[in-house]
Amino acid sequence: MLIVLKEKNNQELIAQVQDLLHSKFGCPSHIIGENRRILAVTGDTSVVDVDLLKSMEGIKSVDRVDRPYPLASRGTKNRTLIHVSDTCVIGDPKSVVVMAGPCSIDSEGDLDEAAAMAKEKGVNILRGGAYKPRTGPYSFQGTGYEGLKLLQKAGEKYGMKTISEIMKAEDLPKFEDTVDMLQIGARNMQNYELLKAVSKSKKPVLLKRGLAATLEEWLLAAEYLLKGGNLNVMLCERGIRTFEQEVRFTLCLGSVPALREMTHLPIIIDPSHAMGKTRWVKDAALGGVAVGADGLIIEIHPRPKDSACDAAQLLDPEHWTDCMDGIRAVSKALGKTVV
Amino acid sequence: MLIVLKEKNNQELIAQVQDLLHSKFGCPSHIIGENRRILAVTGDTSVVDVDLLKSMEGIKSVDRVDRPYPLASRGTKNRTLIHVSDTCVIGDPKSVVVMAGPCSIDSEGDLDEAAAMAKEKGVNILRGGAYKPRTGPYSFQGTGYEGLKLLQKAGEKYGMKTISEIMKAEDLPKFEDTVDMLQIGARNMQNYELLKAVSKSKKPVLLKRGLAATLEEWLLAAEYLLKGGNLNVMLCERGIRTFEQEVRFTLCLGSVPALREMTHLPIIIDPSHAMGKTRWVKDAALGGVAVGADGLIIEIHPRPKDSACDAAQLLDPEHWTDCMDGIRAVSKALGKTVV
Amino acid sequence: MLIVLKEKNNQELIAQVQDLLHSKFGCPSHIIGENRRILAVTGDTSVVDVDLLKSMEGIKSVDRVDRPYPLASRGTKNRTLIHVSDTCVIGDPKSVVVMAGPCSIDSEGDLDEAAAMAKEKGVNILRGGAYKPRTGPYSFQGTGYEGLKLLQKAGEKYGMKTISEIMKAEDLPKFEDTVDMLQIGARNMQNYELLKAVSKSKKPVLLKRGLAATLEEWLLAAEYLLKGGNLNVMLCERGIRTFEQEVRFTLCLGSVPALREMTHLPIIIDPSHAMGKTRWVKDAALGGVAVGADGLIIEIHPRPKDSACDAAQLLDPEHWTDCMDGIRAVSKALGKTVV
Amino acid sequence: MLIVLKEKNNQELIAQVQDLLHSKFGCPSHIIGENRRILAVTGDTSVVDVDLLKSMEGIKSVDRVDRPYPLASRGTKNRTLIHVSDTCVIGDPKSVVVMAGPCSIDSEGDLDEAAAMAKEKGVNILRGGAYKPRTGPYSFQGTGYEGLKLLQKAGEKYGMKTISEIMKAEDLPKFEDTVDMLQIGARNMQNYELLKAVSKSKKPVLLKRGLAATLEEWLLAAEYLLKGGNLNVMLCERGIRTFEQEVRFTLCLGSVPALREMTHLPIIIDPSHAMGKTRWVKDAALGGVAVGADGLIIEIHPRPKDSACDAAQLLDPEHWTDCMDGIRAVSKALGKTVV
Repeated sequence: MLIVLKEKNNQELIAQVQDLLHSKFGCPSHIIGENRRILAVTGDTSVVDVDLLKSMEGIKSVDRVDRPYPLASRGTKNRTLIHVSDTCVIGDPKSVVVMAGPCSIDSEGDLDEAAAMAKEKGVNILRGGAYKPRTGPYSFQGTGYEGLKLLQKAGEKYGMKTISEIMKAEDLPKFEDTVDMLQIGARNMQNYELLKAVSKSKKPVLLKRGLAATLEEWLLAAEYLLKGGNLNVMLCERGIRTFEQEVRFTLCLGSVPALREMTHLPIIIDPSHAMGKTRWVKDAALGGVAVGADGLIIEIHPRPKDSACDAAQLLDPEHWTDCMDGIRAVSKALGKTVV
Repeated sequence: MLIVLKEKNNQELIAQVQDLLHSKFGCPSHIIGENRRILAVTGDTSVVDVDLLKSMEGIKSVDRVDRPYPLASRGTKNRTLIHVSDTCVIGDPKSVVVMAGPCSIDSEGDLDEAAAMAKEKGVNILRGGAYKPRTGPYSFQGTGYEGLKLLQKAGEKYGMKTISEIMKAEDLPKFEDTVDMLQIGARNMQNYELLKAVSKSKKPVLLKRGLAATLEEWLLAAEYLLKGGNLNVMLCERGIRTFEQEVRFTLCLGSVPALREMTHLPIIIDPSHAMGKTRWVKDAALGGVAVGADGLIIEIHPRPKDSACDAAQLLDPEHWTDCMDGIRAVSKALGKTVV
Repeated sequence: MLIVLKEKNNQELIAQVQDLLHSKFGCPSHIIGENRRILAVTGDTSVVDVDLLKSMEGIKSVDRVDRPYPLASRGTKNRTLIHVSDTCVIGDPKSVVVMAGPCSIDSEGDLDEAAAMAKEKGVNILRGGAYKPRTGPYSFQGTGYEGLKLLQKAGEKYGMKTISEIMKAEDLPKFEDTVDMLQIGARNMQNYELLKAVSKSKKPVLLKRGLAATLEEWLLAAEYLLKGGNLNVMLCERGIRTFEQEVRFTLCLGSVPALREMTHLPIIIDPSHAMGKTRWVKDAALGGVAVGADGLIIEIHPRPKDSACDAAQLLDPEHWTDCMDGIRAVSKALGKTVV
Repeated sequence: MLIVLKEKNNQELIAQVQDLLHSKFGCPSHIIGENRRILAVTGDTSVVDVDLLKSMEGIKSVDRVDRPYPLASRGTKNRTLIHVSDTCVIGDPKSVVVMAGPCSIDSEGDLDEAAAMAKEKGVNILRGGAYKPRTGPYSFQGTGYEGLKLLQKAGEKYGMKTISEIMKAEDLPKFEDTVDMLQIGARNMQNYELLKAVSKSKKPVLLKRGLAATLEEWLLAAEYLLKGGNLNVMLCERGIRTFEQEVRFTLCLGSVPALREMTHLPIIIDPSHAMGKTRWVKDAALGGVAVGADGLIIEIHPRPKDSACDAAQLLDPEHWTDCMDGIRAVSKALGKTVV
């Protein structure tokens, strides 16, 4: 960490800052350069309160230099590979993983049909929501544990792994019993109690980006999972909130190359929630593949208008076929295989 | 709810939409006007999926007309009054309520001094964080239940009511035993499981605005609390996330008059987290009073640099005195009393 | 336009609104439906002040229904085709047009080399900035008319059309003499005096999106050009300003399918300004092709560090080759030809 | 300027960076500290391309340290005072200046009545738009030079100074002849050609903040005016564009204390455009005074519904009286006089 003072050789201020760093954060510091304007801080600088330093009179700037998420940081390893099966590895630079399934698990029949749709196109991971985070309390809240069991059954029938969203720590045993991967939604990205609980699971976790989360905050949320012992973490970009209202959220595809330099974690794109309209999902999915994402998570349904939620953005069989054809074509053009 | 079609008298589309509304959402609908382009939907339209309708070919627009948060809506009552004590009522148009205290409860001594600072200036509600939501896992996470008990003790000693942030449902009994009011933080505004749990408490709840929450989403989160039976809900504006980086968050003071027309719930301003710098807090606090907020929640500390978190924005005794003098002057100018 | 009143059959309000619509905006209106709550407004509703209506007591909502940009609207035609040459048509669903060249025209030698780089990869349109909009007054402001003449010379030498940014109306004759296409920058998207001047030119215009412009505001700016008589307008998405700071701007690729339904104008993506880093440009360019854009505008330079501006995002020969290979591969996968 | 390298004592990189700084930007640089990881750059660092440096492999961070707007920076002087008259000085810490008048100058009669409304409440500066920047080309575009002459006449009749928005450089002579102060609108904040032209005028200039402008970009735009020789520049916060849609724009009142530390220029608040509704303007105006702004610019009209634009946000006589009473009360509470 580097601290730049406004004036040269302000001995009183230097003493004050060094004392603060030592007594409050336990960090040694030493003056750099002839002008005596720069302090280098060493030790565990992750505990230093940068805002406090910045607020002091006489301090020009503070630069942390080191990333505050050591485990998620690219420095520690190149790429996390999550082995779903012999042929399906998330994070492999030569693969694009597709996860698909209904938004919510409404009935066994519809789920089965959706699973068949996914399987037919070569999908290895079945998604489906049993516990649903809804903006308003009067909306359908999901089928809960029954839904999870239906998802498990469909996964077994079609030979697919399963993923579903967990909303509270107490539900973890139910998820441990039934699904293969856990999802943490955008609204819970900074629900630290949930992150701590899920960090104790051995199952891979897909962590969606919060609507207003910076890339650093997102990686710090992932760090909660990694620090707790769960190393199989995937990041999922699902659109951020901006002034633009024509699309449901602003899918920030530029975050893919930026994240790639910051972290070794796989990056998944959710085109369904970002776009919010069935007929726009394919374009966003192809965009996600083209910017280099490791995978996609897509909502599909045999008859979208029968769905209890997010009907407007679900892919029906025709759009789904068209979308997967496009995904395969673009993946192939980039030398990648869809798994 | 109103649905406008693109063409006049498209009989096939009209039949399709009416069938969908009836079979999927149980809502009757009837055609309005000679042109047969407008459908009025009645019944419980809160269940209708507007996005689905908007995504249909041939539909021009959909207008919900009715607010989806009936309990929080201004229509139902004019103002919620939360009786803290005989002289301190939150939501009274003639009062400005100030809550103050340290960011986190680090030690009994510091908390006691902060409480004395608050009491001396006539504050009736003591704030203090025991469970701290921290962006990174390596930051100080709070003193937990011990902290709550210290807060209770300080509140009793100085005759103040207390408020503290709850982060998970299981902690509710500990809060019920110790504090007078509950706070739900910005990161948990859409943690619906927490909202449902807290809705069962009889204690007043201060619900902070999420960093990317629209006013409607915020009121829908409040609706979760109201629907569960907790009618003493306060809204707390603490700044939203925008492109502006010089201030920590963009305090949206314009939301105060807008909310006033939408809801009967009291509106509190948090100038400390929004501004992020001690020397800017007073200006924002006075701005909050001037736009008509019902109260303020302010972080103070006898020696800010000793605080385990948010040291940069805490008011020391000198800034605190100056801030309260300003708050009293502006409140008086508006015919209001600081309580 | 539809106006919905709060109450049924409020005769006084109905009379007041109808009178206002007639006397102030010259629009007839009639009541729709039995409940007498809805007013349909006809005539030239583009002049009606929706905000005024919305602010009236007793009015629930106002829905314009009709787009306020009749000429830019998709309704009027399906696709605008801009014929650059026999083989290069902008807006053709089977083509991806690439424009490339240096950020600024610094010297004849560098420009010539950049043009050769572009030509070698099959590019038909050479870009280059002569008048540069710079955030600060002390930055390099461009080579002006001399630069335009160098651009013309390079275009002629290599058989490419040229495009350059115009910043003020008085410079139009200089552009008319030298370049083939005009560019209006993001900062000038709502410089209406410049739009009016450029609308009188016969040359195609590339209109960049303002940093905070909604899609509707962008199309309204295009409407200024179309209304003035210039029908060859291209829209260029170059990233919007959001809270995200790791990437220079947030490239809103989701706007491509949304715009496609709103307008017939071609859509170009600028990955260079959005990403701000050489090594991220390719990913964003490929994303742009994959979401269905009609073309790309990319900054290249034989030796980026010699450039007088935007050096950090320029593609050197190696990155440029890699980028074009990717663009061709993805375009081919989508059944499109790079022209 | 400080440049931090990733590794210690990377001699090759150090040589490369120093060479680049010297040959490309003419800046000397020297290594600071034992670790040989930090380069201090001196000379005119305002020309150095920070993005280029940041994009280089091996560079950890670049910190400019010095502000790129030397003339606008607080360092150079404490406060700019703009002497409007003997009793009205903009920028005086003991004054709140109110500018008021109609949005657009539609007719001599209405303008005269609005001027009388303003004068009656002690206003010294009359605002009125003659050239109107309109989002769509079909909206009323203003009365032009005739409007300016009416404004001049009203100003003379009531003994008030006048201010009006200029949209293109060629109109400057017309403004020089008629008005006392110039306004540059939010959409033109980065219209550098206009800034350069207006910088040559001797009249005070009110520079509105662009919808997506950071405080630094805003001050850099002001720097264009100062560098050209016009030292009487005021900044006007009028709301930024965010995801929040209930209010027209998000008035960023927190920018006032932040700007106060960055610059010596006076800060004016425009509550009318930010709020967009007559009945919310007063609250925002009072908020502006309370956060410490130097003045307000408010739209008023004898009969708002007769106005050709922005009718929804104009203050009628009753709201205007109420608003000014509040402004005087809050100003007095802060020890300030309304002038």
